[in-house]
Amino acid sequence: MTVMLRVDASARLGGSITRQMADRFIEGWRTSEPNVQITTRDVGREPPSIVSEASIRAGFTPPEQRTPDMKATLAESMTLIDEVRRSEVLVISAPLYNYGLPASLKAWIDQVVRPGETFSFDLRRGDFPIQSTLSGKSLVVLSSRGEFGFEPGGIRDGWNHLNPHLRTVATRLLGIADEDIYEIASEYQEFDDQRHHQSREQALHDAAELGSRLAGASVTA
Amino acid sequence: MTVMLRVDASARLGGSITRQMADRFIEGWRTSEPNVQITTRDVGREPPSIVSEASIRAGFTPPEQRTPDMKATLAESMTLIDEVRRSEVLVISAPLYNYGLPASLKAWIDQVVRPGETFSFDLRRGDFPIQSTLSGKSLVVLSSRGEFGFEPGGIRDGWNHLNPHLRTVATRLLGIADEDIYEIASEYQEFDDQRHHQSREQALHDAAELGSRLAGASVTA
Repeated sequence: MTVMLRVDASARLGGSITRQMADRFIEGWRTSEPNVQITTRDVGREPPSIVSEASIRAGFTPPEQRTPDMKATLAESMTLIDEVRRSEVLVISAPLYNYGLPASLKAWIDQVVRPGETFSFDLRRGDFPIQSTLSGKSLVVLSSRGEFGFEPGGIRDGWNHLNPHLRTVATRLLGIADEDIYEIASEYQEFDDQRHHQSREQALHDAAELGSRLAGASVTA
Repeated sequence: MTVMLRVDASARLGGSITRQMADRFIEGWRTSEPNVQITTRDVGREPPSIVSEASIRAGFTPPEQRTPDMKATLAESMTLIDEVRRSEVLVISAPLYNYGLPASLKAWIDQVVRPGETFSFDLRRGDFPIQSTLSGKSLVVLSSRGEFGFEPGGIRDGWNHLNPHLRTVATRLLGIADEDIYEIASEYQEFDDQRHHQSREQALHDAAELGSRLAGASVTA
């Protein structure tokens, strides 16, 4: 049975394209594996705390030396890390806000990436002292953009800082291999025209198909 | 008299390299223009609210149709926008967190970039309907990175998603010209070695010098 974590980052609860994409992905998955176990972490509805001086200090204190206050400060982070750790598939649905991640999703990342929990740090490794302690997960990024043309050579090439950033976080900090990252996006939302209609329908279709395909591969693996 | 907005995004209040860089930049500025007027917005200490469905709905409602609740929801955003609007120089001090912006700084951006306030939207402009209503500002980005090699051809080329993202936000949404963006960074922090010592000293020195130089240009302009 596959264990999946769904993270929704749209601030919009109704009418969100990215939430619909995640719904479709899961519907697709269930056609191949009906009993997939899914945890939903809705950071759009309830943003995680933003890291503070106190939480950073607590995180860098060895567990056996943490005060009760420090443990309380880290409780939220521990919950979020635990959800990631026991999941094989991470599904992140996130609109592009001002050309980057929603702040809520960045807050989630900053709570999840922690020394001693999700990565180890050792200067004996030379110029790459950070190594993720996670492995074997896959990541599905379902995104929506108001504009278009973010692809290489497009009229907004280099303006999309969401997908590249998530890819760096995934590969460098969450132990996810480059080839285990899947991305689908709907575009043209703010034009609200035929191009948008078509892009959204394609994205919803692709999300369902990807879900079904990955589930099939997972079930037969 | 120059009006400056300083935005500090480090969660660390003491010992923060980026805060020291901002201090040095301002000291440098004051050697050329002692009476520069500075507002400080400390998003590291007090993160702005993360946009919600209610705040987005309020922001897209024409001002004259906003309910008292909507106005209350937007009050914070209005304050932050006002600070940006009346400033000629934006100084952002921000460490690289997990290869991107601190969530607090992204929350600030999402509160500042607002239709009807900082940008206008008009589909008659064709494929580029968004136009910033701000202009003539300059942006100084003072950053710190635990690692190194983020430059083109470096061992972490493409892993720094902070500077490129801020540049896109500045040029596309805040009306800041590419050539009016200045960037200084300290690196190697997590190696805590001679390379770090040297990088930090250089960054602090460069920050002071840039402050003095820009102030001189501003005063004689």
